[in-house]
Amino acid sequence: MTGPGEAAAVEAANAELYAALEAGDLDRMEAVWDDDDPAALVCIHPGWSMLRGRGQVLRSWAAIMAGTSYIQFVLTDVAVSFPGEGVALVSCQENILTSLEELGQAPRAVTCNLFRRDAAGRWRLRAHVASPVLEPGENDEDDAAGEAGG
Amino acid sequence: MTGPGEAAAVEAANAELYAALEAGDLDRMEAVWDDDDPAALVCIHPGWSMLRGRGQVLRSWAAIMAGTSYIQFVLTDVAVSFPGEGVALVSCQENILTSLEELGQAPRAVTCNLFRRDAAGRWRLRAHVASPVLEPGENDEDDAAGEAGG
Repeated sequence: MTGPGEAAAVEAANAELYAALEAGDLDRMEAVWDDDDPAALVCIHPGWSMLRGRGQVLRSWAAIMAGTSYIQFVLTDVAVSFPGEGVALVSCQENILTSLEELGQAPRAVTCNLFRRDAAGRWRLRAHVASPVLEPGENDEDDAAGEAGG
Repeated sequence: MTGPGEAAAVEAANAELYAALEAGDLDRMEAVWDDDDPAALVCIHPGWSMLRGRGQVLRSWAAIMAGTSYIQFVLTDVAVSFPGEGVALVSCQENILTSLEELGQAPRAVTCNLFRRDAAGRWRLRAHVASPVLEPGENDEDDAAGEAGG
């Protein structure tokens, strides 16, 4: 149930989140998010406070779409894992190209997207947490290792 | 299996993450994190790049402990949900009190912690994603709703 085929399906569901935003298509965005337990949805945009519940979450995407004339995501370092049956976690780095400065977004965010497989077998988004990368460099791993000191 | 009792157990596991850090106790921190699938662990500290794998994740906590003389977390707005059997998501706001400026942390972060129930019935941490809150105010929900414009 959680073989390579499932991982590919999860990656496709993850890509659809960004494609829906790039297309400014709220209907597609609504389809991305789980509707089994509306109150359980969680969304954290880079630098924002927490948003909870399907209504609040989808309104935030509508607001972002309304305020964005151009946005494109290049996803790197994408990894899929399955913490349980029918649950998948995607972690990735978002490299964000936009024509707007007023979003206040960092050009890079690191993100976890949590998906649940619904009764129809589709992977639906339960939680999106994007954290802005505020470090100047790419050597974070070296920094952490170097300071650990046993 | 996912009744109020389980939610309380998950909340306790979540609290132990912060208690271990406050105590500067790496052994407790190691016990918090899942060891079933070491490569699958994901950790994002506020403003940092992504860390993956048990070794890299635990080294980062060791580095934070080594560089922190005092840190305390007040968790607010804690919510627990169960996206699947044996999987729990905790979302909360971290209000961070520290004596150090050089961590570069925002005083508030919004966080999702993903737990898996292990064979012994303990809730173990699979992913920690903390995103710094960069907004000045508390009116994010109003902002999002106000800009949505249908």
